Amino acid sequence: MESARWLQLQRTVRFGDTDAAGVMHFHQLLRWCHEAYEESLERFGIPARHLFPAPTWARPPSQPEAADPGAESPSVALPIVHCSADYLAPMVCGDQLRIHLEPKLQDAGAFSINYRFEPLDPVPAASQPLGEAAAPRPLALACTRHLAIDRHSRRRCDLPTPIRRWLEMSGIGLGVRPL
Amino acid sequence: MESARWLQLQRTVRFGDTDAAGVMHFHQLLRWCHEAYEESLERFGIPARHLFPAPTWARPPSQPEAADPGAESPSVALPIVHCSADYLAPMVCGDQLRIHLEPKLQDAGAFSINYRFEPLDPVPAASQPLGEAAAPRPLALACTRHLAIDRHSRRRCDLPTPIRRWLEMSGIGLGVRPL
Amino acid sequence: MESARWLQLQRTVRFGDTDAAGVMHFHQLLRWCHEAYEESLERFGIPARHLFPAPTWARPPSQPEAADPGAESPSVALPIVHCSADYLAPMVCGDQLRIHLEPKLQDAGAFSINYRFEPLDPVPAASQPLGEAAAPRPLALACTRHLAIDRHSRRRCDLPTPIRRWLEMSGIGLGVRPL
Amino acid sequence: MESARWLQLQRTVRFGDTDAAGVMHFHQLLRWCHEAYEESLERFGIPARHLFPAPTWARPPSQPEAADPGAESPSVALPIVHCSADYLAPMVCGDQLRIHLEPKLQDAGAFSINYRFEPLDPVPAASQPLGEAAAPRPLALACTRHLAIDRHSRRRCDLPTPIRRWLEMSGIGLGVRPL
Repeated sequence: MESARWLQLQRTVRFGDTDAAGVMHFHQLLRWCHEAYEESLERFGIPARHLFPAPTWARPPSQPEAADPGAESPSVALPIVHCSADYLAPMVCGDQLRIHLEPKLQDAGAFSINYRFEPLDPVPAASQPLGEAAAPRPLALACTRHLAIDRHSRRRCDLPTPIRRWLEMSGIGLGVRPL
Repeated sequence: MESARWLQLQRTVRFGDTDAAGVMHFHQLLRWCHEAYEESLERFGIPARHLFPAPTWARPPSQPEAADPGAESPSVALPIVHCSADYLAPMVCGDQLRIHLEPKLQDAGAFSINYRFEPLDPVPAASQPLGEAAAPRPLALACTRHLAIDRHSRRRCDLPTPIRRWLEMSGIGLGVRPL
Repeated sequence: MESARWLQLQRTVRFGDTDAAGVMHFHQLLRWCHEAYEESLERFGIPARHLFPAPTWARPPSQPEAADPGAESPSVALPIVHCSADYLAPMVCGDQLRIHLEPKLQDAGAFSINYRFEPLDPVPAASQPLGEAAAPRPLALACTRHLAIDRHSRRRCDLPTPIRRWLEMSGIGLGVRPL
Repeated sequence: MESARWLQLQRTVRFGDTDAAGVMHFHQLLRWCHEAYEESLERFGIPARHLFPAPTWARPPSQPEAADPGAESPSVALPIVHCSADYLAPMVCGDQLRIHLEPKLQDAGAFSINYRFEPLDPVPAASQPLGEAAAPRPLALACTRHLAIDRHSRRRCDLPTPIRRWLEMSGIGLGVRPL
C-alpha cells in the first residue's frame, strides 16, 4: 500500500553530510529526521509558525498578526524525549534517498515517528535473487518520540489539534486529502 | 532577465537551523551555499561522484565501475579557499527562500559563486512605497571561491571539464539547455 | 567510585547548539557523544590518525611517515551501527556539563559506549529533599554501538589493538594508568 | 607580545568536522569562530546568560532570579551581520589548533572579531628555511562583525557594558586582569 504524499519525502546526501571515511556522518541522519518531520507537516498544510516558536517581530508586513490567529508563538512545545537510529548500509555524497515517515499517537500528550531511509532508485529486480521481495532494502531506520509540554506551566499537556489531525490522517493513510 | 533553471533554487528554513534568538544561526547559511552549489551541478547534469570524492566500495551493484568512466574518485579537488556572507534580514523557521547562484570563472584553475537569498513570496507590490522596484530585497548575500587542486601532486591545476562547462553555460544564462 | 580521567569529560552548551525553543537542539547531543569518544581516546593516548582516516598528504613535515608506523590510514573502520538518546531535562546556552563515558566490549569485533550528561555544578545538597542521594540527576543519556570493518574486504573483523586496550582499561576503571 | 589568556584558545579537529575529502569542511570554521567568541567571554568573566537569550524557566533552583540582576533574558541582541574566512591550509581529524582572537570596537553599537587559526605545535624552527620568522603560519583566518540591536524596538543601540569592557580590555592586551 502506498502511503500518503506527505509521508514520502526525498533528500540527497550532500558533501557536508559526509566525514573523512567518505560516508554520511551518523548524527546527520537525526537532523534529516527532524527536517523530514517539518516537511511532512508543511505538506500536510500546517505552517511552521503554528508549531515551532519564532520571534513575533520577524513576521513580514504582508502577514499581520490579526489575520492569522495561530500566528503568535505556539503555547505548546513538542520536545523530543527519545531518539534512536540503525545504520544498515553506508550512504555517500550524491545518493538520492526516499524517506518514509510513520507517525503514531502514543497517548493524548505524546507521539512517535518512525523513519525508513531507502535508495530512491533501488537495485532493479532483474539483478536480485529469485523470489526476493521487490521492496528496497532500507539504508537506515530511525525513531523520534515527542511530548507535548505547556510552555508556561512546563507540565505535560494534550497535543495541539493540528498535530493530532496529522497523526490521525497519517494512520489512515492512502487516499486521504490533507487540510 | 530570468536565470537558468539550475541557478534558481529553493529551500525552507528548518527548526534546527535556528538558535535561541529565534532566527537562522549565521553559519548555517554557508552550509546552504554549498548544498545549493551541489544541487545546481546536479540539475545541470553533473553527477556528484564526478566532482566529489566517495569510497569506491560504496558503488551499488547496479552501477559497475566499467560502465561509468567518470566513476572513480575524481583526480581534481575543488576546495573552498575563501567565503563571506552578509546578513541583511533575519530568517525564521518555516521561511521559504529563493536562492540565486551566479558562478564566475576566475582563471583556468579557479572560480567563485555569488549567492543571493530572497523570500520566495516577497511582500506584494501594493504594500511597497510608490516607485520602488519590484525586485525583492535580499535577506542575505554570500560568496565562495574555489581552487582546482590535483589530488596527487597537491598543486594547482586546471578546472575539470564539467565544471568549466557549468561555468560557461551559467554565464550565458537564460535559454541554454544543460547537458 | 570515581572513573578514570579519560572517561570524565566536560563541555559547555554553545549558542549554535540551541534552537528557537531556547534549548539544545536534540541531534547536537549525538555530535557531542562522538566528540567525547574522540577526546577520551586522545586522553588515553591513542592519536586520532591511528583510528580515523585522513589523507596521507596532510601529514606535517615534522612527522615523517617512517617515524610513525601507525600513521598510514587505518585499515579498520569503526562505523556506528546504532545510536540512541534520552533527553531528561533541557539544556541552555552556557550550561556546563560533565560527560561520563562507559565503553563496553560486545564481542571481538564490536563495542558500545554509554554516555551520561550531568550538570557540572549540580544543585547543592542543602536544597535537595531529605534522604535523596547526592548523585546529580542526569540531563541526558545516550548510547552508540560500533562495528569493526576491514576497509578492503568490507567484512567484519576484530577490533584494533589500541581500542581493545582502551575498552579493557575502561572496564577496570579507577587507578589504571593510560598508555 | 603575548595576548591575554581569554584571547588564546585551543580546539581539536573532530571526525564530524571533516568531509569525504578527508579535511575540515569549510563551514565548520565559522562554527568554531562563534564558539571561540563565547569561550572568550566566559573566560573573561561574562556569563552566557548575560548576552545570549535563554528561556527563563530553564534557570536551576540554585540560581533564583532575584540573586542575579543580569539573569533575565538580555535586552540587547548582538547578531552577526557579516562574516568571512580564508582557508590557507587543510586541517585533518586530530589536528590541534590554537585560536587567536582580536576583538575590535567599530563604533558605539558595533564590533568585529578577527580570528587566526594556527597549529598548536608548529613545525620546529630547525626544519624551517634560514631567516624565517618563528611565528607559525596560520591555517585559516576569519572575521565576524556584530551589531547591537534593541530586542524590543528592533533598532540599533549601544553595546552592552560587559561586552564593551571585554573589547576595551582586549585592546589593551597583555597583563590585564579580567573581571
